[in-house]
Amino acid sequence: MIGAGSWGTTFGKILADGGANVTMWARRPELANEIHEGKRNSEYLPGINLPREMSATHHLSEALDGAEQVYLSIPSQAVRQNLKAVRPLVANTDAPIVSLMKGVERRTGLRMSQVIEQELHCDPLRIAVASGPNLALEIAREQPTAAVISSTSQEPADAVARRARNRYFRTFVNTDVIGTEFGGVLKNLIAVAIGIVDGVGYGENTKASIITRGLVEMTDFAVAFGAHPETLQGLAGLGDLIATCQSPLSRNNTAGRLLGQGYSFQDVVKQMQQTAEGLASVTPILQLAREVGVEMPIVEQVKMVLDGTMNPRDIAPHLTTDDDTPQGERTQNGQAGGGGALWRSIQRALDQFRDGGRGASGNRS
Amino acid sequence: MIGAGSWGTTFGKILADGGANVTMWARRPELANEIHEGKRNSEYLPGINLPREMSATHHLSEALDGAEQVYLSIPSQAVRQNLKAVRPLVANTDAPIVSLMKGVERRTGLRMSQVIEQELHCDPLRIAVASGPNLALEIAREQPTAAVISSTSQEPADAVARRARNRYFRTFVNTDVIGTEFGGVLKNLIAVAIGIVDGVGYGENTKASIITRGLVEMTDFAVAFGAHPETLQGLAGLGDLIATCQSPLSRNNTAGRLLGQGYSFQDVVKQMQQTAEGLASVTPILQLAREVGVEMPIVEQVKMVLDGTMNPRDIAPHLTTDDDTPQGERTQNGQAGGGGALWRSIQRALDQFRDGGRGASGNRS
Repeated sequence: MIGAGSWGTTFGKILADGGANVTMWARRPELANEIHEGKRNSEYLPGINLPREMSATHHLSEALDGAEQVYLSIPSQAVRQNLKAVRPLVANTDAPIVSLMKGVERRTGLRMSQVIEQELHCDPLRIAVASGPNLALEIAREQPTAAVISSTSQEPADAVARRARNRYFRTFVNTDVIGTEFGGVLKNLIAVAIGIVDGVGYGENTKASIITRGLVEMTDFAVAFGAHPETLQGLAGLGDLIATCQSPLSRNNTAGRLLGQGYSFQDVVKQMQQTAEGLASVTPILQLAREVGVEMPIVEQVKMVLDGTMNPRDIAPHLTTDDDTPQGERTQNGQAGGGGALWRSIQRALDQFRDGGRGASGNRS
Repeated sequence: MIGAGSWGTTFGKILADGGANVTMWARRPELANEIHEGKRNSEYLPGINLPREMSATHHLSEALDGAEQVYLSIPSQAVRQNLKAVRPLVANTDAPIVSLMKGVERRTGLRMSQVIEQELHCDPLRIAVASGPNLALEIAREQPTAAVISSTSQEPADAVARRARNRYFRTFVNTDVIGTEFGGVLKNLIAVAIGIVDGVGYGENTKASIITRGLVEMTDFAVAFGAHPETLQGLAGLGDLIATCQSPLSRNNTAGRLLGQGYSFQDVVKQMQQTAEGLASVTPILQLAREVGVEMPIVEQVKMVLDGTMNPRDIAPHLTTDDDTPQGERTQNGQAGGGGALWRSIQRALDQFRDGGRGASGNRS
């Protein structure tokens, strides 16, 4: 396990509690030492006892030596730099490389699996990603959780899922890496909207409406970039979205709450000292959405609140400037069941068949 | 509007705020009078001012005279009896009949639209249902909300959606009455599971996992009875599920919480004086699920907790007795993209095409 923050350490515990021999790598010798000898990570997981089967080192080569599976849990903007040292150490194995990271690299717009592929120069079929609702401390407390493991070819996902499971952690598998990774990025935008709603003082009904409609926006966007809609409706989309929206500790939720209470974007950035991921992605995601013709009314409203052109009280699960023509829930330009929908369904079915189960992830660019 | 409880009165306010002339019918003259003269319903919607455009009467014939649209909001077990008096008054019109009710008739297992069809002897194409996240008091406070209107043929849904919308209430439409109605029934079962989780003291991560996996169970069940999966992933399924799971006032959530705290089923029934809808449906729904071969591991676990054969602490988003074979998220018997999935996709696409957009609701029995 490369990285010993709260999520990396929690995932190490998941693996060890499932029977694996886990070696954690921490950059700082004192942290590696605390985990190795004291079976604690008091900075990131206060109060949690780590399993006896978990060891730790601050030497990368020791951590990777003979590893059957390699897990990465590094801050998303530091991944590329860190992987340069990992590369020679995993060049001669075919161990699956598992990304536990969410987000895109800001400079390039690439998803984490794409950064890994570039930096490790490895077969993309070796790369897997884990996602789902993952509030680390709750899982470290062994509260029952489900997650998803995704890889373009079935085999690494299955192998990882067999390891990364125990009595409190259940993993499902899919072959849609694009959808699995986009879920973890797009949920931050909707979490900001939910924060705004919280800040204004609206209740569960408004939040349920925005989560449901927000999931449609996430799905439409991800599908336009090659994802399967089912993935977004699963643990890496809906599951992660609900957990993030309900967690008062989430930075995105907090940023939204401050906006909803009437603070300006500048105030929020100053008060939080660091930009929440969701705030930073609003403009680039909307730009991409426009390029592929996807409508995202909730994200548009978040932008208007950020720009100071909309009163947070007016945020709604739809654009209030829409006309009153009744619309279906799923498609943006008409009812399900028309000829276009038929053609798209058949097309998708045939694509899946040709890919032999690998689905749209075969189209990754 | 037939019925002046909290939801009926709130929906009347929605219609009036959207510009409609609304006449409420209340059985009790004093309630009709309070609404008509005082523009209040202090018993069901304390603190809410009702629109000037809303009148009320306790004479059914007055309420229905010349109505362009008829809305029904009556306790689900009393619908059949109440409709006998409505029938002659709507026989000579073709006004859409809109059900605002959730649940099934216990004696017959029929959905509300089916009871309406039987009792009013009317063209089933006239019947529409409204659903979605509907915590009445929050909507009465004009907090932004989205909902769905469904009818087997497109026209009544469109006509109702044009009326039932205003600046804080947005309606979408579909033609899947089966899925729309099943969403409102099945969410109660998952809300009991979430209540159990709350009672045990687990956090947002476990709840997000159970809501996501619970939605898969709801979808599989409803689809087996002719629903479209998209409907369950929309406002009448997911949206209603989230609002119900997050509302501490929900009877189903309360019942679950007591179970999670260690009370027995008998204690809970005694303490609540009345059985929560979700508790009453567990056994019949599981029986139907078995008959059509649908697996519902979360609902099974709720039953085990009710039966006293499972410790509530052990509830999880999956059956802990499952083996470790990695599974996909959507299908119960294998990965997406296999020949079976291809065939089902094409079949579904062709079904939709044949129905000309009416979809599986054309198969209603």
